[in-house]
Amino acid sequence: MDSIVYTPIGIIHSDFTDKSGMPIQPSSAIGKKGSIKLLPEYTEGLKDLDGFSHIIVIYHFHKSEGHDLQTIPFLDNKAHGIFAVRAPKRPNSICLSVLKLIRVEENILHVENIDILDDTPVLDIKPYIPEFDAAENVKIGWVEKSKGKIKGKMSDRRFE
Amino acid sequence: MDSIVYTPIGIIHSDFTDKSGMPIQPSSAIGKKGSIKLLPEYTEGLKDLDGFSHIIVIYHFHKSEGHDLQTIPFLDNKAHGIFAVRAPKRPNSICLSVLKLIRVEENILHVENIDILDDTPVLDIKPYIPEFDAAENVKIGWVEKSKGKIKGKMSDRRFE
Repeated sequence: MDSIVYTPIGIIHSDFTDKSGMPIQPSSAIGKKGSIKLLPEYTEGLKDLDGFSHIIVIYHFHKSEGHDLQTIPFLDNKAHGIFAVRAPKRPNSICLSVLKLIRVEENILHVENIDILDDTPVLDIKPYIPEFDAAENVKIGWVEKSKGKIKGKMSDRRFE
Repeated sequence: MDSIVYTPIGIIHSDFTDKSGMPIQPSSAIGKKGSIKLLPEYTEGLKDLDGFSHIIVIYHFHKSEGHDLQTIPFLDNKAHGIFAVRAPKRPNSICLSVLKLIRVEENILHVENIDILDDTPVLDIKPYIPEFDAAENVKIGWVEKSKGKIKGKMSDRRFE
């Protein structure tokens, strides 16, 4: 199939400069502050985003190389298919995080609950809208037994 | 910034062959069935996905060309920044939908609530996990006044 080429719209800044010891998800990063700096040419595209409390940030795992088809995720000791986990070494290393939007200042978004490595290239920003994005009556497979263990969970070196 | 190159992992099939007259979001597509056919080489990556009731599908809007920095979305008659709407003509035409997973059959995912055009290339599949992906105490800016109008809302030709 034909390749798809994207160009980053900006860069994410956080206190996390090492893949190990960082929050594995926004729910393990409550209160952690960071920012997303868009290229100035995209500033106009942020109009009215400040009315939303949360944004979906789509970014590229720039420190991930290669992929596994099955992997042991941070929350388990058994291997699962790569499409059944949120681990970074994926066929296409795309990730998304739902972050709290604190303030928009020109081309800079100040965010909270950030679980993203410093200097990560960002591909898209979308407003988070529960009626579009939140499902009900959800079953979470192998993650069920880890419920409640996610808060405060940090990464280790397994994906390096 | 350096370009990022992805290769689709499969193709999405739905009854929607025209950008106009199709659901604008999964919540306007309740019960609509479709499928995601992964390349056979990725079948092993689906292990244990069948335990999840919902998946996040990340795909490329292959029928979208160019982008606007501000646009009038389907749910409003005023222009908003492209990063404050979910419209397809974005700097990087990436989209995501949270779909109901009905059944996994080898390399084929049977899904429901599909709001995606037939033949769309898929970039990634992730399990939907409310503790990771659902935010609380959410403010939805300009969308607030459209609440409850999304069910059954179909696209028109404005983005062609």
